[in-house]
Formats: sequence, structure tokens, C-alpha cells
Amino acid sequence: MSTDTLTDLGRDERSRGTSGATLWFTGLPSAGKSTIAHALADRLVADGVAVEVLDGDVVRPHLSAGLGYTRADRDINVSRIGWVARLLASHGVVVLVPVIAPYADARASVRADHAEHAVPFGEVFVATSLAVAEGRDVKGLYARARSGEISGMTGVDDPYEQPTTAELTIDTAAVPLTESVAHAYALLTDLIPERLRS
Amino acid sequence: MSTDTLTDLGRDERSRGTSGATLWFTGLPSAGKSTIAHALADRLVADGVAVEVLDGDVVRPHLSAGLGYTRADRDINVSRIGWVARLLASHGVVVLVPVIAPYADARASVRADHAEHAVPFGEVFVATSLAVAEGRDVKGLYARARSGEISGMTGVDDPYEQPTTAELTIDTAAVPLTESVAHAYALLTDLIPERLRS
Repeated sequence: MSTDTLTDLGRDERSRGTSGATLWFTGLPSAGKSTIAHALADRLVADGVAVEVLDGDVVRPHLSAGLGYTRADRDINVSRIGWVARLLASHGVVVLVPVIAPYADARASVRADHAEHAVPFGEVFVATSLAVAEGRDVKGLYARARSGEISGMTGVDDPYEQPTTAELTIDTAAVPLTESVAHAYALLTDLIPERLRS
Repeated sequence: MSTDTLTDLGRDERSRGTSGATLWFTGLPSAGKSTIAHALADRLVADGVAVEVLDGDVVRPHLSAGLGYTRADRDINVSRIGWVARLLASHGVVVLVPVIAPYADARASVRADHAEHAVPFGEVFVATSLAVAEGRDVKGLYARARSGEISGMTGVDDPYEQPTTAELTIDTAAVPLTESVAHAYALLTDLIPERLRS
């Protein structure tokens, strides 16, 4: 960055190097969001890229202890994760966010915040069907929701608004993991071509 | 980093480059925390260092909307900011945190979290006296607290536990800003000598 350029930019912009990007993996519980995100992270790390995975279950106690699963609380949780992702990505980190984010408005807000700060953002819809996701039931949550033990379960008694704006859609019932990762990697290559080689 | 080294480290470690650091500026309201942090940020940016200032008032709506100023809520707020700071610093960012953080235990937890993840951390006690800070009253909060309009004001009717573990103590009534910044810069140079030159 030349000195001439520096004088034209505010401090926030001047303190950034090459941009990272945020890839948000939205989808039903057990759709395969975390599996793809972590496999992609492994590949990126092998490439020497700075990566952070902000996994919903891991992040929630740090950022959103006390929040529940109402629409308002889910939206706040998504907003906080989006803000942290944008900060990290603005400093060159590739941030992978496997978080349900069931409401389109909240996802759109995160996208808008990234755009406002000129940080690349991609939405990956992990479009595994409810039947397949429930068949996996990695955490046993569908079973508990069906038995009435828990409520507010996305896909069962809580809504999931399918993305209409996703840059990439992956049905993990139809596509093997390696191919899913390759598609997501290709999307990243489009978002930050100067950082990755296809 | 050699390939041999890579195989000995987990993904988190492998995805990090040269470390950043967190400097936490603790002190009373109007002590001068933000002023020092932003002046230091300007100097670091001029040096080409990636910097993020997590200023309490700016960060709170993003991370802690809905929280108040009870001890429990303050501790949660500090913990969240500490977690975000540690993530950013682990990816090479110098994170400056001008946040009151009135309770020693909460500050110690942030320090411990950084240590656990091998991220450099320094505590700067901005030790301006209550009399001087209240005389400034940048936001008019002392006046509102004294008149009874607001309560839970640190230094007035809410405690401030003075640090006993600070790496640096600055009394802004005794030391001009340029000197305060130089001291904080020198502390950073101690924490991340490979990144900065004294």
C-alpha cells in the first residue's frame, strides 16, 4: 500500500492488510454445516491460510450466554457472530460460520454489514432435506423435539427460512464431502482471488 | 514455519501467523483510556501494524445489548470483549481495549484465557484519580450520577477494584499523552518484540 493511498483512507481501512472473507453455512440442524466447514478449514490451513471456525455451539457460551431460541434471541446471536466474523475477516482471516441462522432478515443484515465494510461475504445453503438431517440427528435433538422434550427446534416446531440469495447450495445427501468442500473452496476463490488459487 | 513444525501442532495453532497482542486499558470513566488507546492505534497504523480498538461504548451494542451494569452483567461484557480480543490477537492483530472492567476477577479471567491460548496480554492501569476524572466528566456521567439521575456509576456508587497486576500504570494527570502512548508502545514492544521495534 503506497503512502499516497494511506492518506486517502481512514484508520480502519489503513490498519487492514489483504482482506479475508466470511463464509456462512446456513441450514437445518444436522444438515452437515460443521462437517463441511471444518473440512474446508483443514484444507485452508494446509494452504497456510489464516482460518477461524465460529461454530454455533462453541461460540454461543462465549457470546450469547443467557439468550434462548426465540426469534429475537436467535437474531441477536446471529448478529453478534456476524460482527465478530466481519472483524476477523477484515484483518485477513477466512472465517467459516456453521450456524443455523434460520431467519433471512438476520442473514441479510450480516451480509449488509460486511458489504458496508467492504469485507467479502458468501452464503452457503447446506440444503440437506429435513428427512435426511433428522435421520442423522447428530445431537439427538430431533428425537427430543419429536417427543416433546424440547421445543423451538428449527425444522420441527420452529421455522427455517430457506435462502434465496445463497452464492452456493449444497445438498449433502447428493454430494460427497470432498466435493462439497471443493465447491466451497471455489466460492472462496471467487471472493478473494488474490488469496487463493483455484 | 516448517512442515515438520506443522505436523506437531493442532489446526488452531497452524492457522495462526505471527501473534498480535491485547492491551487492556482499565480505569475509571474519563480516566483517559480511549484517548490513549486511539492515539496508540494511530501510531501503530502509521507503522503498518494491524490494529483494532474495541472501545467499550462502541462494542456494547454489538456484543452486549440487553446487559446492564450489575456486577454479573459487567463481568459478562468484559468476558465477551476479552474473547473477541483474544481471537483477533491470535490472528496477528494488536487489539487495544479501553474498557473500564472494574472487577479484578473478570480482568484476571481475560488474562488467563489469553495465557491459555498463548496470546500476549498486557494490562494498562489508567490510574487517573477520581477527582481528575470527575473534573473532566467527558460524557457528563459523573454529574448525572451525583445528582442521582443514574446509578451504578463506577467510582461513584459502584466499585472499581484497582489492578495489582498491571504491566503498566499511567496517571494521565501527571503524564502528557505523547508520553503515555510511548509507555504503552514500549509495553507492546516487550510483548511482541518480533512485531515492533523500540
